[in-house]
Amino acid sequence: MSKLRCHISISLDGFVAGPNQSVENPLGEGGERLHDWVVPLASWREGHAKEGGEVNASDRVVEEARENLGAAVMGRNMFGPIGGGPWVNEDWLGWWGDNPPYHYPVFVVTHYPREPVEMAGGTTYHFVTDGIESALDQAKEAAGGKDVMLWGGGDIIGQYLAAGLLDELELHVVPILLGDGARIFGTPGGVRLEQIRSVEAPGVTHLKYRVLK
Amino acid sequence: MSKLRCHISISLDGFVAGPNQSVENPLGEGGERLHDWVVPLASWREGHAKEGGEVNASDRVVEEARENLGAAVMGRNMFGPIGGGPWVNEDWLGWWGDNPPYHYPVFVVTHYPREPVEMAGGTTYHFVTDGIESALDQAKEAAGGKDVMLWGGGDIIGQYLAAGLLDELELHVVPILLGDGARIFGTPGGVRLEQIRSVEAPGVTHLKYRVLK
Repeated sequence: MSKLRCHISISLDGFVAGPNQSVENPLGEGGERLHDWVVPLASWREGHAKEGGEVNASDRVVEEARENLGAAVMGRNMFGPIGGGPWVNEDWLGWWGDNPPYHYPVFVVTHYPREPVEMAGGTTYHFVTDGIESALDQAKEAAGGKDVMLWGGGDIIGQYLAAGLLDELELHVVPILLGDGARIFGTPGGVRLEQIRSVEAPGVTHLKYRVLK
Repeated sequence: MSKLRCHISISLDGFVAGPNQSVENPLGEGGERLHDWVVPLASWREGHAKEGGEVNASDRVVEEARENLGAAVMGRNMFGPIGGGPWVNEDWLGWWGDNPPYHYPVFVVTHYPREPVEMAGGTTYHFVTDGIESALDQAKEAAGGKDVMLWGGGDIIGQYLAAGLLDELELHVVPILLGDGARIFGTPGGVRLEQIRSVEAPGVTHLKYRVLK
C-alpha cells in the first residue's frame, strides 16, 4: 500500500530551519548547516546530476529515502518564500531551477489557486487549495502504488503527523544548536511512534520511526 | 581532567519532562514513559540494588554513564518538588529514599541555604546558593579527580551548556511525543557540539556529544 513518508534534517535542539527565513536565506540563520552531512555524499551528488563525492553510512540512508517514490507533497512555505503571498501564482517556479530534483508530480498545499506547471525531467507542480487530505489523496493517485514523500516544511509535517496521515518519519539529527526557528512537532495529540532503526554516520545520526495507527 | 557530564532521557519532540510537574507526578504528564527503556535493564536494576533484568545494547550505555563519577550537581527543581519553596530546607530529603542511588556527594543549586544532609550509602546532599559555577567548583573538588555528573533538570542543563561548562552530553532519545513540558536547550549562544557516537537499542537511541570549547 502506498505510504506517506517524511525525512528531514533537524538540529539537536529540534529545529528544521533557523530563525528569520527569507528569500535570501530560505533555511534561516544557521540553517544551511543542517545539510552539511548530506551535500558531500556521492548519493546526494548523483541525485543532483553531479559526479564523485564521499561514501559513508549516510549513503544507504539517502538511497533508501529515494526508493519507491511516485509523488510528493509540500507546503507552500517550502515551495516559495515565506510571506510571499499571491505573487507565487505568477512567476515563481520553486527553488530548484528548471529541472528540479524530484522527477515526479509534486502537490503544493496553498491558499492560492494556480494552474499546474510542468518542469523539465518529470517534475510537475500541482497546487492544491482544499487541504492536506486532498493533497495526499491526489498525490497517492498520481503515485500509482508507489509511496508519497512529504518534503516539508515544519508546519505541514506537524499537521500530517497530528492528523494521523503520516506513516514513516526519519530524522537526520545534526549536532548543531539553532536556538530558534521552525519546529515539526506541534500538538501531537495521541500520536504514537515505534523506532524502526538508527544509523550512526559522520556528523549525523539517522532515526527512523513508524507512526502507529 | 575532571569532566562535567550529563545524560538524560528526552522525547523525540525535545522534552525531558511532561507538562504539569507536581509532587504526585514529578516527571509531568506522560513523563514516566521517558524511562520505559531503562527500568527493565539488568544494569539499571543492579544500580538500584535489584537482581535480574534484560540485557541489550542499552546496558553498556548505562554502565558507561556510571563509570568514573566522584560527585554530582543537580538543580533545586530536580531535588525537590517544583514550586516547593523554603520548606525544602526542613524535612525534604529528595525523591530517592534513605539510601539514594548516587553514593557520592551531590551539590544542589538552590536559593535557600541549608546544612548538608548525610544519607546512607555515601550520598551527602550539599546546598549551594552562590550559583552554578560555584556548585561545579565544589563538586570537582569533592570528586577528587573523577568526573562530575549533571543530573538535571532541564533548566540547569541549559544553563551549564550556555555557560560553556558542560563537557559531554548524552541524550537517550525515546520515541514518544510529549507535546509540552521541560526542555534543556534554552538560548545556546555559540555552543558547538561534536557527535561522539550513537547506539541503537530497543525503544531508544543513545546520542553522545562532546561540547567543543
